Amino acid sequence: MICQHVSIKTIIPLSLSSQPLNSLKSDEAASGPKQGPTFQDGQRRVDYVLTYHIQKPRSFRRKTSHFGDYRILRSLRRSLSMMRGRDTPPPKEDPEVAAHKHRLDYHEDDKRFRQTEFEDNLREMGLELEKDEGNKIPGIGFLKIHAPWNVLCREAEFMKLKMPTKKVWQLPLRPVKVLPSLSTPMLKQPNRAQNTLFYPLLSCQILYEEWASYSVFYKYQPIGLIRKYFGEKIGLYFAWLGVYTQMLIPAAIVGAIVFLYGCATVDNDIPSMEICDPRNNITMCPLCDRACSYWKLKTACGTARASHLFDNPATVFFSIFMALWAAMFMEHWKRRQMRLNYIWDLTGFEEEEVSLCPYTTASLLLYVCSYFSLDYVLIPLFQDKKVKLTCTDRAPAYMTGLFTMLFMVGVTFAVVFGVILYRISIRAALHMSSNPTARTNIRATVKGTAAVINLVIIIIMDEVYGALARWLTLLEVPKTDKSFEERLIIKTFVLKFANAFSPIVYLAFFRGRMVGRPGDYLYVIGSYRMEECAHAGCLMELCIQLCITMLGKQLIQNNLFEIGIPKIKKLIRRRKSDMDSQQQEDYNMTLQRHEKDHFLGPFVGLSPEYMEMIIQFGMVTLFVASFPLAPLFALLNNIIEIRLDAKKFVTEVRRPIAGSAKDIGIWYNLLRGLSKVAVIVNAFVISFTSDFIPRLVYQYMYSPDGSMHGFVNHTLSYFNVSDFQPGTAPLQPMHLGYEVQICRYKDYRETPWSNTPYDLSKEFWAILACRLAFVVVFQNVVMLMSDFVDWLIPDIPKDISLQIHKEKILMVELFMKEEEGKKLLRDSHCPGGWLHLPVHLVCSETFSPPVWTWTLHIHTQWPTQEKREAVIGRLLHVHPF
Amino acid sequence: MICQHVSIKTIIPLSLSSQPLNSLKSDEAASGPKQGPTFQDGQRRVDYVLTYHIQKPRSFRRKTSHFGDYRILRSLRRSLSMMRGRDTPPPKEDPEVAAHKHRLDYHEDDKRFRQTEFEDNLREMGLELEKDEGNKIPGIGFLKIHAPWNVLCREAEFMKLKMPTKKVWQLPLRPVKVLPSLSTPMLKQPNRAQNTLFYPLLSCQILYEEWASYSVFYKYQPIGLIRKYFGEKIGLYFAWLGVYTQMLIPAAIVGAIVFLYGCATVDNDIPSMEICDPRNNITMCPLCDRACSYWKLKTACGTARASHLFDNPATVFFSIFMALWAAMFMEHWKRRQMRLNYIWDLTGFEEEEVSLCPYTTASLLLYVCSYFSLDYVLIPLFQDKKVKLTCTDRAPAYMTGLFTMLFMVGVTFAVVFGVILYRISIRAALHMSSNPTARTNIRATVKGTAAVINLVIIIIMDEVYGALARWLTLLEVPKTDKSFEERLIIKTFVLKFANAFSPIVYLAFFRGRMVGRPGDYLYVIGSYRMEECAHAGCLMELCIQLCITMLGKQLIQNNLFEIGIPKIKKLIRRRKSDMDSQQQEDYNMTLQRHEKDHFLGPFVGLSPEYMEMIIQFGMVTLFVASFPLAPLFALLNNIIEIRLDAKKFVTEVRRPIAGSAKDIGIWYNLLRGLSKVAVIVNAFVISFTSDFIPRLVYQYMYSPDGSMHGFVNHTLSYFNVSDFQPGTAPLQPMHLGYEVQICRYKDYRETPWSNTPYDLSKEFWAILACRLAFVVVFQNVVMLMSDFVDWLIPDIPKDISLQIHKEKILMVELFMKEEEGKKLLRDSHCPGGWLHLPVHLVCSETFSPPVWTWTLHIHTQWPTQEKREAVIGRLLHVHPF
Repeated sequence: MICQHVSIKTIIPLSLSSQPLNSLKSDEAASGPKQGPTFQDGQRRVDYVLTYHIQKPRSFRRKTSHFGDYRILRSLRRSLSMMRGRDTPPPKEDPEVAAHKHRLDYHEDDKRFRQTEFEDNLREMGLELEKDEGNKIPGIGFLKIHAPWNVLCREAEFMKLKMPTKKVWQLPLRPVKVLPSLSTPMLKQPNRAQNTLFYPLLSCQILYEEWASYSVFYKYQPIGLIRKYFGEKIGLYFAWLGVYTQMLIPAAIVGAIVFLYGCATVDNDIPSMEICDPRNNITMCPLCDRACSYWKLKTACGTARASHLFDNPATVFFSIFMALWAAMFMEHWKRRQMRLNYIWDLTGFEEEEVSLCPYTTASLLLYVCSYFSLDYVLIPLFQDKKVKLTCTDRAPAYMTGLFTMLFMVGVTFAVVFGVILYRISIRAALHMSSNPTARTNIRATVKGTAAVINLVIIIIMDEVYGALARWLTLLEVPKTDKSFEERLIIKTFVLKFANAFSPIVYLAFFRGRMVGRPGDYLYVIGSYRMEECAHAGCLMELCIQLCITMLGKQLIQNNLFEIGIPKIKKLIRRRKSDMDSQQQEDYNMTLQRHEKDHFLGPFVGLSPEYMEMIIQFGMVTLFVASFPLAPLFALLNNIIEIRLDAKKFVTEVRRPIAGSAKDIGIWYNLLRGLSKVAVIVNAFVISFTSDFIPRLVYQYMYSPDGSMHGFVNHTLSYFNVSDFQPGTAPLQPMHLGYEVQICRYKDYRETPWSNTPYDLSKEFWAILACRLAFVVVFQNVVMLMSDFVDWLIPDIPKDISLQIHKEKILMVELFMKEEEGKKLLRDSHCPGGWLHLPVHLVCSETFSPPVWTWTLHIHTQWPTQEKREAVIGRLLHVHPF
Repeated sequence: MICQHVSIKTIIPLSLSSQPLNSLKSDEAASGPKQGPTFQDGQRRVDYVLTYHIQKPRSFRRKTSHFGDYRILRSLRRSLSMMRGRDTPPPKEDPEVAAHKHRLDYHEDDKRFRQTEFEDNLREMGLELEKDEGNKIPGIGFLKIHAPWNVLCREAEFMKLKMPTKKVWQLPLRPVKVLPSLSTPMLKQPNRAQNTLFYPLLSCQILYEEWASYSVFYKYQPIGLIRKYFGEKIGLYFAWLGVYTQMLIPAAIVGAIVFLYGCATVDNDIPSMEICDPRNNITMCPLCDRACSYWKLKTACGTARASHLFDNPATVFFSIFMALWAAMFMEHWKRRQMRLNYIWDLTGFEEEEVSLCPYTTASLLLYVCSYFSLDYVLIPLFQDKKVKLTCTDRAPAYMTGLFTMLFMVGVTFAVVFGVILYRISIRAALHMSSNPTARTNIRATVKGTAAVINLVIIIIMDEVYGALARWLTLLEVPKTDKSFEERLIIKTFVLKFANAFSPIVYLAFFRGRMVGRPGDYLYVIGSYRMEECAHAGCLMELCIQLCITMLGKQLIQNNLFEIGIPKIKKLIRRRKSDMDSQQQEDYNMTLQRHEKDHFLGPFVGLSPEYMEMIIQFGMVTLFVASFPLAPLFALLNNIIEIRLDAKKFVTEVRRPIAGSAKDIGIWYNLLRGLSKVAVIVNAFVISFTSDFIPRLVYQYMYSPDGSMHGFVNHTLSYFNVSDFQPGTAPLQPMHLGYEVQICRYKDYRETPWSNTPYDLSKEFWAILACRLAFVVVFQNVVMLMSDFVDWLIPDIPKDISLQIHKEKILMVELFMKEEEGKKLLRDSHCPGGWLHLPVHLVCSETFSPPVWTWTLHIHTQWPTQEKREAVIGRLLHVHPF
């Protein structure tokens, strides 16, 4: 069996962790004990299994066999039963156990007491518990939970769960062989599989074959099944990932076309032709002090041609396209979400905020319970010790958070600056070398190593920032689970975003801009001149950096972190156990399913997955003007990512608790924020980083014949070599073979022979004004267009809103008919109570005429596993131990 | 009695219009027939009165007395009863009537048949009807409607109405004398009055005394009472108006301070000092061709000083302040709305979209039923003839709409241009005059008349556009009432907005910019030069225009249209009737309340009121950079407006049907849109219309000593008078007493002696770049700050969300206790039905233990009038005749 089922290992002794069992059947429909794990009676099925770690006294640890320290376990269980005073009659005291019991200190007793209390609470709520007597894993106890029908009903009422009327439960059992046709190829309806039932134990098998496999990458995901098996939260993640990937297809195609357009027109690009033309004998000023000498512009030919691939008018079109694409994507997702809400009967569902933790300042306790909450451990502990934190209590944590965040963002900038210094210094050193081939090679090496260093730092810092954000959020003691998650996400997002994007932002907007001019260069840290861009602008380098970051992050983080490290961990775990593989296998055979699942890795939440995608979305939208291939890269990555995540969720980690959710929460806001910021960033990239505006201005304001001829000359200012500051003139002025009087540099400045030599020229200001005008126009037009798209596409798909409307009318008619039959309402005052209008969930498995709920949902039995789990999950949360 | 109660006049014969009666009591609580209008039995109270117009045969019209043509009425009523076959036994046929009946044509019969059908439908729904036998108004029939308790209950269930648990109905009856203390002075809690009961007939009296009076302008409005009497829709309007007016107070204060700052610093303003200084002997180029001559800059001294009042650095601060103010206002309103929703128990309320009209292409019918809908007449008619309109059917209407809108906006621009031409031509003509005093006088006259013409055109076009928008919306055949209203509002908004703002936009952004330069002026229509601004920029004129538009619109539209015209109409109506005042009074005495109300003007909806306020909001936010006193003007207007509207609603028009609403609907979106647009408009006003940026640039880039000295000289370019185009040089070159070689004009251009004379100078481009940079920075910073304000202030007030949370917990606990008592759920499967969890309205007046609804709302009797009305209103709508 590939599928995992149960439980979590626990860190803190005697605390409980919970995990749902995998089975889609309601109690009533369960035909026999073999259909899934059950209680000892073979009838009541196990819904959840709680595991708890049993702290063994030191002296016993080495002696315990792998098949469990029965004595300790038994004693523990016995003492628990004694305290409880029911379930099982207290067995007579075992003298050996009694001796050990004295060694357990007060702290342990306290914890055990709390566990008992918790179990009592569960029983009081109507849940049925069973301790696992055949436990084979040392140090771990299992507590099985069964939720009877009436408890499910009651809780469903509280949660206002809706049940579907649709043709659920009508398909007969089909053999597995027929099933592969269910996840249809991409162009067909994605959710066909959703409304049909499979029998419980097959779900996982189908998911494994039809979803968690690279061979089905071209098919829609079976979202309905995913939701059935993993619950709405994870279902929504994969649905979102699917929509995003699907939407990337047109973006990738257009991006590729834009790139190909660049390739096709590179030979017709007049500016690069002029640069490459040996007849334009332009002598450029040296790129560094003393060591460098004058150089010929035509040596920049290659870079200029390469730049054209990414810096052409099609790019402007593409970034407008991508801004609208982002708006469309958001709309598309809203509609899809709405549709899923409808199909999954979540339209009336309200998310309940679960109190995270008692408010107390004991930070250890905070750490403990917060940690648990994230690990799906039952909290809150110590409800009676509630302390309300005031603003004054919280202020230090907020301040710490704020300053740490600022400090870390500062660190990120410092790292970027460090890499810059690395490049500058190495480059300066290398210009001292006399061998020109060595120079060229080393220059490429420097660029390469710098990018790799950047990447490695990004990846390392990412991990640091993840831990830091969690710590800072713990300090803040958020009140609810949801608020904890949101704060954590925001912090992680800010840090990781700054980390991933600061080198890119530097390249796009700062590099080459703070250089100064010949004779008046800007120096940093002693005598290093700031970096200049290659002749054709920084766009090319920005593009390379983006490419490396995207590919590198995706390859390393996906392959190494997500696949490699878990495998290594597993290997190590296996090595540690002192059995050989045969022994291991035999041992595994004896284990029950939940015991096997205990050895799987824990589910760490969806945040890392979302975060990865959001950063990618940032790359795709923010700097798309400089790298039109980004959507294509993202698309290729995501096609793999979906299946990779699927595999991980189905086979690698313990099955997460099915959580209900209507939407993707704060991630939607982050996406929306990003797509807004993308507009302004793209406006700046186009107008300031690319040569688009200077070209346009030249063509329409300065060109004598309205063509681009002469553009290169127009962008270069003149410098009189006699104006070099003392000690900065090149050591080898005759390097090019002739004496240089005037060299050229890329800037718009007055000529040496004007009244105000080297001042910014009129052209500079005119072009600056045009650049800014472009920003204003671009930003407002694109924002307006995005808003228009937003307004044009209704949030609720028309068929869904029609359907809802129809159901309402049908419901009213039905009710009217029923009303007429009764007559009692018309003829008297209200009949001593309220009208029996069923509004939410209706538990009426014994009813033959359908009972209509408010939105016309019939319920005859519990149709889906995740609803069942959600109900129990809530019970466990609401009544803490 | 001041208060109106019932009914509406109807235009189309035999159609029905409805109006709720005013009484706050439930049937059960009504202690006697004197408490309000009742049926003939004195027991059942009248909830609604429908009126219908009886088409009289031509030959009878002149003969009927004012006390009704009984024969026609009787015959009609009799024939109706016959068709119905119940209520009253068929009276024996009157031969005279029978003769007339034959004259009624088929069309009339059809309509009557439909009315019968409609009445039958109402009866079938459980409503009780009674025809008014004592009708004293000729040509009008009245149909009284009573809704019994059980019908109210049933409909309330459908509408998921919630009833409050709060201390409603607990206060004993207080005499009226005590009541004035209820609407407390402004600084206290505004809603104290809300949770206390007054007895029904007092509501209106209290509203009249404590709300619809100018003497209480400093008090909060009794919103709770307003809502009780008029329903949520109107309650929300006044609440919104109150919040807006309240928020205007800080804006008005800051605006006044900014203005005073301008006044205080006018003497220290170096540029205006320089202009006024006679030592700066600057000769300016003529302002028009031939007729005008050179002039001295110091004659512009007054304008320059006046401009400083509105064009100083404080203005920049103020427009940032106002952008944040707008964001704050929106947030504040959201919170207030949420609070009202909670207090009014609308949290779960869903607005139902009522189908407006059968989809048919018969345009007359469309007109009829759409007209009715707006007049609160019952629609849809002819439900059985439903035809679904396809896109092709709708396309012509949409196209017509679009092109008419474009055309009308074009007309608006043309009108603005016409006024410009008027000014130009008159001014040119006036320069021909030789008398300098006449010139100055006439110049002022021209400015004044132009502004007045603009204003008059705006007001006239406003009325035209209102009618046009309605007609266009009718053409589109919207599907629901709500959609009709929204489309109408959007159209009206676009047209009225273009109308009100195009002269202002022209002044702010176009005037003085398309002038050309001396020697190369821009000419329109033959030989008119475009208008220039006064020396200190157009800000001053913009300010005057805003001032006139705001004051004029408010004075004329408020006083003339809202007060004057209704009074005149009333007078005319009274004149028309051929009774003297004594007779009239006697006649009035005989009339029942609903018959009296019939003579009041109809309620035309809230749209005009909102529209007026939205346009004002536009004035306050969009051009606040140029007119810091706008908020003050708006505040003064609104203080009057609230009481004016109150008076109108309480005494002048028929009482509108209480409509439920959760929010102010599309107006919120319009406000939001406006406050977004305001940011960019203000950015442009500051950077392009005011002199803020040029001053800043001069001070930091060009000033030799870092002060503003020399700024005026810097803004003026040189012109060599020998470069005048032939025939444009002044006829009196010696006007100033000396020969002029070089004159100056306001622009940044090269000197005549440069290489490129009269080209735009480097300063021009530098300042343009700075202006645009300011726009980019201002827009993004302010948008970010607005978003931050939006994010910072939670949408739901903390106490409300706490309250909701508490109620939920209480509810869960209560339910759990009840559950424990029952036990039947725990011990068995679900008890053959559903759980009796009361979820929405609970009609349990006979119950002694409180019955808890989902959000813990108790209901023991029908507490509020507007709920009752809403229930019946829905009934009437859902089951059409």
